[in-house]
Amino acid sequence: MSTLTEHPHPEQIRVAVSTVIFSLRRDPGDDRARVVMPLVRRTRDPFEGRWALPGGWLGDVEGMEAAASRTLAETTGLAPSYLEQLYAFGDVDRSPTRVVSIVYWALVREDESRATAQENVAWFDATTHPELAFDHDHIVRYALWRLRNKVGYSRIAHGLLPDLFTLADLREVYEAILGRRLDPANFRRQVEGSATLIPTDERRGGSHRPARLYRYNHDVELAERGPLPD
Amino acid sequence: MSTLTEHPHPEQIRVAVSTVIFSLRRDPGDDRARVVMPLVRRTRDPFEGRWALPGGWLGDVEGMEAAASRTLAETTGLAPSYLEQLYAFGDVDRSPTRVVSIVYWALVREDESRATAQENVAWFDATTHPELAFDHDHIVRYALWRLRNKVGYSRIAHGLLPDLFTLADLREVYEAILGRRLDPANFRRQVEGSATLIPTDERRGGSHRPARLYRYNHDVELAERGPLPD
Repeated sequence: MSTLTEHPHPEQIRVAVSTVIFSLRRDPGDDRARVVMPLVRRTRDPFEGRWALPGGWLGDVEGMEAAASRTLAETTGLAPSYLEQLYAFGDVDRSPTRVVSIVYWALVREDESRATAQENVAWFDATTHPELAFDHDHIVRYALWRLRNKVGYSRIAHGLLPDLFTLADLREVYEAILGRRLDPANFRRQVEGSATLIPTDERRGGSHRPARLYRYNHDVELAERGPLPD
Repeated sequence: MSTLTEHPHPEQIRVAVSTVIFSLRRDPGDDRARVVMPLVRRTRDPFEGRWALPGGWLGDVEGMEAAASRTLAETTGLAPSYLEQLYAFGDVDRSPTRVVSIVYWALVREDESRATAQENVAWFDATTHPELAFDHDHIVRYALWRLRNKVGYSRIAHGLLPDLFTLADLREVYEAILGRRLDPANFRRQVEGSATLIPTDERRGGSHRPARLYRYNHDVELAERGPLPD
């Protein structure tokens, strides 16, 4: 109880926002898609020259998500329709001065992610990238862990797909996120056994066997699918 | 881009921590358990006399979870073994001055929750309580929503149960969290069809048909139960 009298000095703590944006990228010649993210090269100390997550200070009359959107747009030109709060990072030694960072994240489709052409911005593989400024390596690892977990019980992959997609498209998203190959037949069985996808009458491709297009079933509220995990 | 020159004044923002502690309570005569939480009566402005979540300022050389534990112990005497970060709340108008609150939460078993006997602390029903200080009504509603969602895909109910429990114990936890009755036969079928519980050889009760005791199966990693929700 004595700590109440120790005067925590909250005025010496500053609040920043950062953003992790994930997208998929398949370059010519790649046989699989990769998860990529935009980084910004720092032009001043601390960590001058190091790559970091897009971000900046929270304004004193600005909402936190608004600050994340603003700083993301200022640094990268990206404007995702939706940002979700990922986590607040506040370790004492994560920066030379005491900074609490509220981190937001979003998934953008590949066509949206091509929009950026700012100075000091580049897209990097989310698992193999240069060492980042501050604790941003830790933040990216956490965001990837959340992404991999979340893909198991939500329709988060939707954020990386167009409205209509083939099962091969969907499997490619899962493979990129999970970082491993999935058996096509098992994958098809699991998808078809769930109520989360709706087959359409449309097909794609001029090949000898055009693939059926699917869409997500928005009537299924995954969070309310029963009192217990199946 | 011009907003970069608007000087966000982050030094005018202070960081606080708050804690939502949920427990179950069944008073004599109650036919079902309720979700309850401890609140602290404010003894100074703003909101003097109003009930609020336990919390306080983040110290400038103190980790955020440590600050949450410290302020929780100082105000309520509670010391849960584990706190999880719930969310960071930072709306501009949530307090007379600009405050970003990092909120932690935990579930404690009924026997742990009886430990508190501090002044200006009381346990309240999590759904029917007096209007709280600041945006704490909003925070509690969000925590309850997360609790109800999470019960669908995690073993969060474990935090409210002893190591060994009957199916009726488990169902009571689900009923308290979800706020509705569940059919005992359906519930038993769902539980027995899942790999999350392990039946033991022990039974409880001196009644004519003592109930089997179960424990959680820690070998099942729910977050990795496959690439798609079942």
